[in-house]
Amino acid sequence: MNTEQHILILGADGYLGWPTAMYFSKLGYQVTAVDNYFRRNACTELDVGMLYPIPTLIERAKIWHERTGREIKVVIGDLQDPELMRSFFDGRVQYQWAIDQSFTGVPGTVVHYAEQPSAPYSLLDYKHANFTLANNLLITNNLLFAIRDFNRATHIVHVGTMGEYGTPDIDIEEGWLEIEHKGRKDTFLFPRQASSLYHTTKIMDTDLMWFAVRTWGLKITDLMQGPVYGIKTDASNVDERLNTIFNYDEIFGTVINRFITQAIVGYPLTVYGKGGQTRGYININDTLQCIHKSTINPPSPGKLRIYNQIMETFSVNELAEKIQKVGKTLGYPVEIQRVDNPRKEAEEHYYNPTYQGLLELGVEPHYLTDKSLASMFKVVEMYKQNIRKDVIYKGMQW
Amino acid sequence: MNTEQHILILGADGYLGWPTAMYFSKLGYQVTAVDNYFRRNACTELDVGMLYPIPTLIERAKIWHERTGREIKVVIGDLQDPELMRSFFDGRVQYQWAIDQSFTGVPGTVVHYAEQPSAPYSLLDYKHANFTLANNLLITNNLLFAIRDFNRATHIVHVGTMGEYGTPDIDIEEGWLEIEHKGRKDTFLFPRQASSLYHTTKIMDTDLMWFAVRTWGLKITDLMQGPVYGIKTDASNVDERLNTIFNYDEIFGTVINRFITQAIVGYPLTVYGKGGQTRGYININDTLQCIHKSTINPPSPGKLRIYNQIMETFSVNELAEKIQKVGKTLGYPVEIQRVDNPRKEAEEHYYNPTYQGLLELGVEPHYLTDKSLASMFKVVEMYKQNIRKDVIYKGMQW
Repeated sequence: MNTEQHILILGADGYLGWPTAMYFSKLGYQVTAVDNYFRRNACTELDVGMLYPIPTLIERAKIWHERTGREIKVVIGDLQDPELMRSFFDGRVQYQWAIDQSFTGVPGTVVHYAEQPSAPYSLLDYKHANFTLANNLLITNNLLFAIRDFNRATHIVHVGTMGEYGTPDIDIEEGWLEIEHKGRKDTFLFPRQASSLYHTTKIMDTDLMWFAVRTWGLKITDLMQGPVYGIKTDASNVDERLNTIFNYDEIFGTVINRFITQAIVGYPLTVYGKGGQTRGYININDTLQCIHKSTINPPSPGKLRIYNQIMETFSVNELAEKIQKVGKTLGYPVEIQRVDNPRKEAEEHYYNPTYQGLLELGVEPHYLTDKSLASMFKVVEMYKQNIRKDVIYKGMQW
Repeated sequence: MNTEQHILILGADGYLGWPTAMYFSKLGYQVTAVDNYFRRNACTELDVGMLYPIPTLIERAKIWHERTGREIKVVIGDLQDPELMRSFFDGRVQYQWAIDQSFTGVPGTVVHYAEQPSAPYSLLDYKHANFTLANNLLITNNLLFAIRDFNRATHIVHVGTMGEYGTPDIDIEEGWLEIEHKGRKDTFLFPRQASSLYHTTKIMDTDLMWFAVRTWGLKITDLMQGPVYGIKTDASNVDERLNTIFNYDEIFGTVINRFITQAIVGYPLTVYGKGGQTRGYININDTLQCIHKSTINPPSPGKLRIYNQIMETFSVNELAEKIQKVGKTLGYPVEIQRVDNPRKEAEEHYYNPTYQGLLELGVEPHYLTDKSLASMFKVVEMYKQNIRKDVIYKGMQW
């Protein structure tokens, strides 16, 4: 097996993980997909529903194989266990599902999504906070040590978040900043200060990876991603059962996906506070492009390369108005409702991030047009009867 | 009980924890001392010895009571367990030793030392790395949530490390830096980039506390401390059995304490690489002053106050030469030996930290004079027969 063509996806059952697994499989990569079903179990725990049920990871891999002839090897397990992580590098791995049970060798790239990804979830209470810290930090650390101990040439593609930077009153650069102070200069990680515990664990990931890169000469790409929207990807179009998990509740739903769902069931779009919160957004298909371009263009050893993975910026008010407008053309009488902000965050602020690096690698953006919004409406409409209004907004505070 | 006069010491069995407990007890505070015996158990695990055996925390509290009539309440347990942490705030606490078993009420100040404090220990292997991450982050998080949930007026005095800053090529300020970028300005945490996993967990603590302070209005003082040296404190002078734990090995021994021990047994002073590594140092008696001054001058709610807790700076070469000189006047033929640096760190670098804040609060520094070194020699000499040469240097690498 050519190491370069072997990719390990950590967190492969999640919103981005499963589309990524299919994307690379379709490109001809040998894909190993790992997950402990955290996301779907948490949806059950919190009773937040999903737009449609999804098959297990093993069932999805089987459907993918039936439809395409391609194999995605599956391992179900908790990557907080360092021995599981190390098994992908030392050959002890046991596949729960695979056509060919033999070890495919050390992966050339690891895409690391295996983190608790929700800000509200991380702040439900001290137990969920501790889970988020332990899960996110120990998995990242297990990965760094496995690569340090077994194969330092393996490239990590990690998904961070634009939320690490928060909303500073200066322009946001791509990961780094040269600082001049009292006549001397040095370059540092761009200042980070997040507005949730989850986002703070991503800052900690960055701290940890930067230590590992400097100390052991690892190769890491860290992608500061904005909120993702969308459902369908090229690969999922072959079978509806291959659609990725879609949440529309306040714990796991991202804002554009939520607003479209709310518009369809006649639930007013819930704008927190003044609605001036501005963030960078990205289509799920562009996330896949970004991961792919990062994978085929690894940084040199000892380099932590950071890109800001967004394609355009909007305030919450702008998003609500766009979705209202498109909804109305489709016959939905969409209302917008301001609610007291349950979160501690700036509702009006300066926001000017740079995001050139991934475009320079060749990513071709899909923008949030009326047409793309209308096509998302069409997909969500198909599952309208599944939508539960009671999970949309509970006003979870922190 | 006056809340202000009740202090909770987390990590009270350690090198700084036990002297801090006695210091506040002597001042008339109600002191609760908590520890899980990590430090002494790790010394056993790694077979690194100590200069002299120390009684258990309960035995020490009993000796303290016999000698002074004062009570230090003792709880033995692991603060990674959130229920133990919360018990100090909700009254469920069970004291393993106390004259008066009744709950003393919510502490006005928590001094948080309950962290794995060794850089080499954190990098022994992936298991020790994971332990360090989980221990340090979960204990800090448990403390933040307990205070958030039960009493936001409680002041946390946390001990961080100057190692969080690393060795930047610009002057190090006290915690914060105003940055001007493209014509705009904002103030951020001073850039941090540490050279060990342990030190990186302290950066993460800072990230986490800064989030908690901003979000919940907590009051936190974070003390960026340099390596501490010394044994005797005013309180420990009442009984030799009250001396704090003293390590001289490469895992837990700090450099000045180690060099003095090496000088006494004729083991050459081991300078890593070029020896230009410059750090800020502090006498253990000044640590106690700093903690006390911080305690009686809490920051306002919503403020993370950061001080650089050092009193002077030296390179390793300067320390070795000072100790060699004093050793020779005492009759020890001290040699200095350069060894290949087992660590990844700059051996010659710019270093210009600010450290004014604690002096402005009234701390009166003890400097590293020939006289203070000679008095440390006199104490260590008393235990010369206990010193094991085999634990001094093993060249543990990372």
